[in-house]
Amino acid sequence: RTLRIGLIPGDGIGREVVPAGRRILEALPSSLKLNFSFVDLDAGFETFRQTGAALPERTVEILKKECDGALFGAVSSPTTPTKGYSSPIVALRKRLDLYANVRPVKSVASAVSPIDLVIVRENTEDLYVKEEKTYDTPQGKVAEAIKRISERASSRIATMAGEIALRRQRVRDSTGSGGAAKKSMVTITHKSNVLSQTDGLFRSTARQVLSQPQYKDVEIEEQIVDSMVYKLFRQPSDYDVIVAPNLYGDILSDGAAALVGSLGLVPSANVGDGFAIGEPCHGSAPDIQGKGIANPIATLRSVALMLEFLGEEKAAAKIYEAVDGNLEGGKLLSPDMGGSAKTDEVVEDILKRL
Amino acid sequence: RTLRIGLIPGDGIGREVVPAGRRILEALPSSLKLNFSFVDLDAGFETFRQTGAALPERTVEILKKECDGALFGAVSSPTTPTKGYSSPIVALRKRLDLYANVRPVKSVASAVSPIDLVIVRENTEDLYVKEEKTYDTPQGKVAEAIKRISERASSRIATMAGEIALRRQRVRDSTGSGGAAKKSMVTITHKSNVLSQTDGLFRSTARQVLSQPQYKDVEIEEQIVDSMVYKLFRQPSDYDVIVAPNLYGDILSDGAAALVGSLGLVPSANVGDGFAIGEPCHGSAPDIQGKGIANPIATLRSVALMLEFLGEEKAAAKIYEAVDGNLEGGKLLSPDMGGSAKTDEVVEDILKRL
Ligand SMILES: CC(C)[C@H](C(=O)O)[C@@H](O)C(=O)O
Ligand SMILES: CC(C)[C@H](C(=O)O)[C@@H](O)C(=O)O
Repeated sequence: RTLRIGLIPGDGIGREVVPAGRRILEALPSSLKLNFSFVDLDAGFETFRQTGAALPERTVEILKKECDGALFGAVSSPTTPTKGYSSPIVALRKRLDLYANVRPVKSVASAVSPIDLVIVRENTEDLYVKEEKTYDTPQGKVAEAIKRISERASSRIATMAGEIALRRQRVRDSTGSGGAAKKSMVTITHKSNVLSQTDGLFRSTARQVLSQPQYKDVEIEEQIVDSMVYKLFRQPSDYDVIVAPNLYGDILSDGAAALVGSLGLVPSANVGDGFAIGEPCHGSAPDIQGKGIANPIATLRSVALMLEFLGEEKAAAKIYEAVDGNLEGGKLLSPDMGGSAKTDEVVEDILKRL
Repeated sequence: RTLRIGLIPGDGIGREVVPAGRRILEALPSSLKLNFSFVDLDAGFETFRQTGAALPERTVEILKKECDGALFGAVSSPTTPTKGYSSPIVALRKRLDLYANVRPVKSVASAVSPIDLVIVRENTEDLYVKEEKTYDTPQGKVAEAIKRISERASSRIATMAGEIALRRQRVRDSTGSGGAAKKSMVTITHKSNVLSQTDGLFRSTARQVLSQPQYKDVEIEEQIVDSMVYKLFRQPSDYDVIVAPNLYGDILSDGAAALVGSLGLVPSANVGDGFAIGEPCHGSAPDIQGKGIANPIATLRSVALMLEFLGEEKAAAKIYEAVDGNLEGGKLLSPDMGGSAKTDEVVEDILKRL
């Protein structure tokens, strides 16, 4: 099988980590019988400055017509309001209907109270519909934004969460890891005590989906978003799959990343039907850009996550193991992990372990 | 001076901690020349079940006409959607125009990297305007909520944040605590990379307010809300005052509470012009209700915070010191703190230290 992968480095360290993602795909053992072809695609603030569009039509077209998946680096946000600029990754998620943003957060296995959870974030609506308006009043300006929650989007994201819970259970059962201790659970996060209609719809739809017979072994739990953040920090090992509307999911996944030491470790995948874009959770990190010291692990894990959603679980497992080997080895770590290795040195150590 | 204080226990452990708040006010040393009179007021889910209104008009009227301040316990949220029920504390904040929710989070002084920050949360608008609607489409139900941000509310909350930063600096200067290490800073939290108009308005208004000459010694910093949560967990001692729109402030304050060990320690005050309601950050905690083991400290600190905003800083300082004494003593702690003391025992230890 040959997979065609779009490479969208974007801005800042995106340009340093996306090439690492390409390298690991090219280095996968030939026994997997997987081949890759690549196409370089533009997006980001730099692209906006040069062309007036943060997400060129060509990028969307090629992804739609030619590609099986893609890898997205990071984009810089302008530091001052910039007319006409709007985030290309948010647009891409909508244009390709990548309705789920999946963010696994896992501590090294040797941790005392190991964290192994995944945040399943709805990726197309909520406040991210970006329908805003501003008007003048005698007391000054007022701005409004729409938060939109639909039964359809809530239903498919809850289905995704349920399926991920089942898949995680299968993996735990087959590897014996986690054992009897960890059972499958989906925690529905919302704020329906204030937003009874919007978050209420998310909550009731997700409950309904997860009450279907195929999920009978998956426990349903609920948390109000503020309390979820509190619990995430106090008892992170209690959680398995957390499903949330777009904005809460955005916040929770950065919070969860803080738990495992560095944003530089945390991958994500933007997933639709038959298409996935891997995307490290970190940003463009202008402070370290160009120094060659960015942690490539979030990107390498995002590559693996993309492969999982394209049905290539074996190849994904290879990458995860090589990355875990590097982390447990503890010798070739990037500065965010307390080490002094360069991006390339970390990549090479991981390639050796493939 | 005699202050008249409304007591609104609400539901669950609210009924166990609000009496503790009354006791500490009555026990303040007479040298402070402060007297208190009290009025018991109803609100909450239990009140809703009995009367059909979660916030009776009488409660609002008496607070407006007779009281100088109040103490609010906690309310239970219904576990299933309940027609006609809506949170009385959210309503109270709006009815009394208590536009700021102030939440100081402080670790014990002996901590290695001490946390001493305060979250200043806008308290009247954002998604809490609760303007929602639901409609049917061929793909199912869709619900929408309005997020409203005004220049006026953003401006007054930024002013409050600036004033609090200056007051904290004065206290640090006068006590020598913090020393040269900690300087005044207000961190504006928003998501203007996605919500350019609403959060953009919050951001630009706050920047403008804090750029005025009276705040020249207060550094202005900004964080996108997801990154703020990450940083809050990774480098909490970097922060001083954090100002945020309503919902982000709600989430951040629970997150910050997790940092200092227990929600049972974290106070808040709902502040308007000349009026303040103290409110512990924890909820009604149905799991421990009636057992007499709720931690009263969040409430006692909320009483102190209320007194601060009513201009009684000396009385407030007395309470803070007595509470710190109890915590540093480390002998009479409630179960959430790893101890086995009952609510009353904690209260008595603190009263002795007044
Ligand atoms: C850059 C920003 C628009 C984006 C988001 O909010 O989704 C980022 O925070 C993310 O999580 O991918
Ligand atoms: C109970 C709930 C409506 C409330 C809020 O969201 O403001 C609570 O979380 C708080 O922070 O006081």
